[in-house]
Amino acid sequence: MDKYVIGIDIGGTNLRGALVDGNEKIVEQLKIASDADLGIERLIENLTGFVKKIRGDNVISGIGIGIPGIIDSEKGVITAAPNIAHVKDYPIRDALAERLGGDTKLVIENDANMVGLGEWRAGAGKDVDTMIMMTIGTGLGGSIILDGKLWSGAHGMGGEIGHITVNPGGPLCNCGNYGCLESYASAWAIRRMVSEALEDGSRDTSLRNSFRNTDPDDLPERVMEAALGGDELALSIWEEVGKALGIAIASLQNMLDVEMVVLGGGVANAWELFIDTAKKEAYRRGFKAPMEKLSIKKSVLGDDAGIIGAAYLALNNLRPD
Amino acid sequence: MDKYVIGIDIGGTNLRGALVDGNEKIVEQLKIASDADLGIERLIENLTGFVKKIRGDNVISGIGIGIPGIIDSEKGVITAAPNIAHVKDYPIRDALAERLGGDTKLVIENDANMVGLGEWRAGAGKDVDTMIMMTIGTGLGGSIILDGKLWSGAHGMGGEIGHITVNPGGPLCNCGNYGCLESYASAWAIRRMVSEALEDGSRDTSLRNSFRNTDPDDLPERVMEAALGGDELALSIWEEVGKALGIAIASLQNMLDVEMVVLGGGVANAWELFIDTAKKEAYRRGFKAPMEKLSIKKSVLGDDAGIIGAAYLALNNLRPD
Repeated sequence: MDKYVIGIDIGGTNLRGALVDGNEKIVEQLKIASDADLGIERLIENLTGFVKKIRGDNVISGIGIGIPGIIDSEKGVITAAPNIAHVKDYPIRDALAERLGGDTKLVIENDANMVGLGEWRAGAGKDVDTMIMMTIGTGLGGSIILDGKLWSGAHGMGGEIGHITVNPGGPLCNCGNYGCLESYASAWAIRRMVSEALEDGSRDTSLRNSFRNTDPDDLPERVMEAALGGDELALSIWEEVGKALGIAIASLQNMLDVEMVVLGGGVANAWELFIDTAKKEAYRRGFKAPMEKLSIKKSVLGDDAGIIGAAYLALNNLRPD
Repeated sequence: MDKYVIGIDIGGTNLRGALVDGNEKIVEQLKIASDADLGIERLIENLTGFVKKIRGDNVISGIGIGIPGIIDSEKGVITAAPNIAHVKDYPIRDALAERLGGDTKLVIENDANMVGLGEWRAGAGKDVDTMIMMTIGTGLGGSIILDGKLWSGAHGMGGEIGHITVNPGGPLCNCGNYGCLESYASAWAIRRMVSEALEDGSRDTSLRNSFRNTDPDDLPERVMEAALGGDELALSIWEEVGKALGIAIASLQNMLDVEMVVLGGGVANAWELFIDTAKKEAYRRGFKAPMEKLSIKKSVLGDDAGIIGAAYLALNNLRPD
């Protein structure tokens, strides 16, 4: 009998997932609304329906779920998750197991860690053992793979690459620190930079209109288009993004000496607009020898990375160590 | 028959080492001049004599050597070492093996990594699995222990915690980067800070005399004494040291989530003068949950840490994995 697992990525808006076979190949994909804004009970209901639907008549031996938040993967608990309403120290693994019945093994992990695992198993990092992934979306999520294993810290709280300080006197970050990488390289950072620049009312930029009429998460795309059209403010913003990424990459490489850094997420679509600056800054700051060994790549799996990572972790969870 | 190994720490001035038994207990210690400034051939001669002397009639199954420089531990090669004259891509393992004869297993590693291993096995970190060590001396050396293993990177060049950027617009570091941790927290950083402050000729400080008459490596002790005597410049320098350490610790903990950070080396003797600032800055900047799990400790082994780490690595090298 074939062995199947299910990999799921919980988003603020959608539940996305796939039925995956023992060779980590996607057999079937599904996407439904998550209703995460309606609270955890509704989300659990939707998750249960999602699993039953995609499972069909197949026997499932494991389910991996990536969750946007602070996750205690050992205990199977969501410690905190700003994008899921009313959730704090919630035992999601037990809650789901009860509804699904049987002895399906459930494994949960922070969504950025799942994305890193996916890119490493099947994406840009599939030929390396040691890799850092940065997912640049609304915020900046990170994940660290060392010697073929996810390093999520002694207490499962590591990998927060978005919150290393790249400029101690920089802007206040959502986390309470000042000058985090995320406060320069993320959708909200781009919004901050545009907003600050527009305070100078005389500044001639095509971004003045987009800023008012654009959803914050879509703003990076407008800034990308403006930069490609030669808008100077837009170009300078991508320069800032690149510089901050370069500072962080040099620090990471001096410290961890990995084989590859992979950049993904929506904001990374502006690749051509920031990557030269990022590399220049990283090579200028990092030690020559480890920097020369480092590949800096764009993610190749896009939105599927988190699903594949979740499925991989579920499969891996079944195997005796 | 008892199993013995030898752990050696190569310094710019001295060779220090010990005969260590299979339980990682020091049986005998020895210190001789390294003559590292006279070149690698002389150093090898001294090392050979050192080993023969401390070995005596015992059978030695392994030797571990900590070397100040960039080390390719897999190949047994010193890639570069600023404090050893005329050395570049030097195959020290083979050179020593030839002179010592027999089949003694030799393992080499960067000296800061040996210090971290020693503190973890037998010092401040002996009850944890996951630890970061910063050795604050002339420069700032780092070492990372994850899940009971030294993480020295995919190419053996990691652990350079002294060269993470804590202030991108900060002073030029010896490595070519700007605003490295080492350029705020090390003996040479203290020298830089004193020197810059003294440019203001009207500044009233007891450090004006010490600066002229003190060996750079002894200056931190003078600045410590001056601070304890209430000298304002000296106090502000320790504040700078503490702030930089705090910024770095927060970034490290957000990223790696370890159980303990250990600070050692000569400059760490000024512990009471910088540790409160360092902790305050780290707690202010780091994520609450992993920061609350973190212990920040002073090293307990002092100069012996590197020797014990080297002996441990030699013993560990003998055991089948």
